[in-house]
Amino acid sequence: MTRPEDLSCPLPLSDHDTVQLAHGAGGRLTGELIARHLLPRFGNPLLDRLEDQAVLEAPGGRLAMTTDTFVVSPLEFPGGDIGDLAVNGTVNDLAMGGARPLYLTVALVLEEGLPLAQLDRILDSMAAAARRAGVQVVAGDTKVVDRGHGDGLYVNTTGLGVVPDGLSLGADRLRPGDAVLLSGSVADHGMAVLATREELSFRATIRSDTAPLHELAAALLDACPPGAVRALRDPTRGGLAATLNEFAAAAGAGIAVEESAVPVHDDVRAACEILGIDPLAVANEGKLVAVVDAAAAGDALAALRAHPLGREAARIGEVTAEHPGLVTLRTPLGVERILEMPLGLQLPRIC
Amino acid sequence: MTRPEDLSCPLPLSDHDTVQLAHGAGGRLTGELIARHLLPRFGNPLLDRLEDQAVLEAPGGRLAMTTDTFVVSPLEFPGGDIGDLAVNGTVNDLAMGGARPLYLTVALVLEEGLPLAQLDRILDSMAAAARRAGVQVVAGDTKVVDRGHGDGLYVNTTGLGVVPDGLSLGADRLRPGDAVLLSGSVADHGMAVLATREELSFRATIRSDTAPLHELAAALLDACPPGAVRALRDPTRGGLAATLNEFAAAAGAGIAVEESAVPVHDDVRAACEILGIDPLAVANEGKLVAVVDAAAAGDALAALRAHPLGREAARIGEVTAEHPGLVTLRTPLGVERILEMPLGLQLPRIC
Repeated sequence: MTRPEDLSCPLPLSDHDTVQLAHGAGGRLTGELIARHLLPRFGNPLLDRLEDQAVLEAPGGRLAMTTDTFVVSPLEFPGGDIGDLAVNGTVNDLAMGGARPLYLTVALVLEEGLPLAQLDRILDSMAAAARRAGVQVVAGDTKVVDRGHGDGLYVNTTGLGVVPDGLSLGADRLRPGDAVLLSGSVADHGMAVLATREELSFRATIRSDTAPLHELAAALLDACPPGAVRALRDPTRGGLAATLNEFAAAAGAGIAVEESAVPVHDDVRAACEILGIDPLAVANEGKLVAVVDAAAAGDALAALRAHPLGREAARIGEVTAEHPGLVTLRTPLGVERILEMPLGLQLPRIC
Repeated sequence: MTRPEDLSCPLPLSDHDTVQLAHGAGGRLTGELIARHLLPRFGNPLLDRLEDQAVLEAPGGRLAMTTDTFVVSPLEFPGGDIGDLAVNGTVNDLAMGGARPLYLTVALVLEEGLPLAQLDRILDSMAAAARRAGVQVVAGDTKVVDRGHGDGLYVNTTGLGVVPDGLSLGADRLRPGDAVLLSGSVADHGMAVLATREELSFRATIRSDTAPLHELAAALLDACPPGAVRALRDPTRGGLAATLNEFAAAAGAGIAVEESAVPVHDDVRAACEILGIDPLAVANEGKLVAVVDAAAAGDALAALRAHPLGREAARIGEVTAEHPGLVTLRTPLGVERILEMPLGLQLPRIC
């Protein structure tokens, strides 16, 4: 034993204001990062064991599993940050399968030099979002990449939920005549991020809509007879245009949308017009698209509107036998045009 | 309908040799990336649905869940690449909980400009590793970040497995007198990556040990009476030193290691000596540390050695009542010293 006199002396904790490469190397600094910054926010008996895996009691029935990495730039924007965005995004992907979200894993890629105070703000936001959604963080990982790489912070969240017995949702279940519902206004999230990133003058008024949709989805499913809700999806990257095109392609059916029925906030519409951006192709992080049996559409819409996250819900179109695989949009002037799948260049790095 | 004559004409596929920002924007190029590069390699009925979440039949019993993001630089190195490393790493974190790995999610962060041919090589390697480990990729995500960020490719893998009834492993189960076993040589992975990154002359002979350990772990558990295997862990970041220190801290016990009993390949030892690096603190990706009841140590060691991945397995030390929380190392000269938790500066970006 080289230094027996030191054995009872706790090693001094290091004191850094920013992320160091050594925080990601698996040694003492990694342990400090976990103990000081992560466990105080996310701790629970499953996570606190700090084994390399969490062991969970299986809830029985079918499980839903989904993963998403968030690379949004900037990390903080009006209405949210990469932290609540990452929790809500994965909660929403579970909820769109009709699942009750239960468990999350959180994997961080930190850039050397990220201020720890900023990391703490974002972790607080993640923890609050997890509490709000009723999910436990059961496992995590932290890596650090060199300064100049990684944009401060990338966050992967992977979620596990339980799917109620008998529930089956999917784009392959769409039938001609079904109604297409949208839970609220589009393009708020993408335009809030873009406005912040580009320091545009209208950025003060536009806020991200990031929110957990599991309660809204559950309220909708509760309000409809079994089987009447065909499919749910949250129109994130690629916006409403991408979601509807995915639905049409998977169903082998057409989807006809009434453009004037799609809610767009005035400030968002004005910003889109100035920048030449189609709000239907801009990402949302707190909205859902539901395709429901037309006979249940009234009850479904009422259930959405009764929830705080669905107050502006609208019936925006229907599934058609015509034009299989295509989404058609009827403009306020009565002209029909194809709403194409966005090529993808419009707005990168918004989630 | 503005262009009805185009409806039957499939849109031309785009033709790029490298990753574009638009590949990550959720539109048509994202769809092409998935259809051309991902589904052909990972496709299965669960993944092919392309919903935002996979719905799985729960296997019953307890589940194990783990997550890991891989940011290794360079992406390819002797013995492996970031692809098989990411699959094996998560398979191993499940296996160290005694779980049988079942499902993986894969989330990619691509750097704009990454050659698609290189991406394909790495995806081939991931797919082969998944087949070898018997796991299905059930959900995925792809993001693209701007050129100059992201180091080509970061990979998150999150795994789900099933834990056999009655099995309980954990560092809190260590008891004084238990034997500490190691399944083979240390420091191969970290030194292979370092040598490739720094273009060191000995890089041709040192190869990463990346490998899936679930069969080796199962063979060990099968060979021992119930409860005799206390804990398993794969000594990745921070190497054997970090794993043993984590064990000692969690158990509130000491761990005494015989340095000469720890296998280190000659070329790796020579490289470590030249560079002044302690091989006990270098990452491994195909080794496990097992703490077992001393009465079962002989059978346990024989079971490890009977498996191709455990041929060089060794008994390297024991759990002690002395020096609780500390790892002590007896050197070949008979001197005892503390094997400290690595601070973490030695080798960043090796996994």
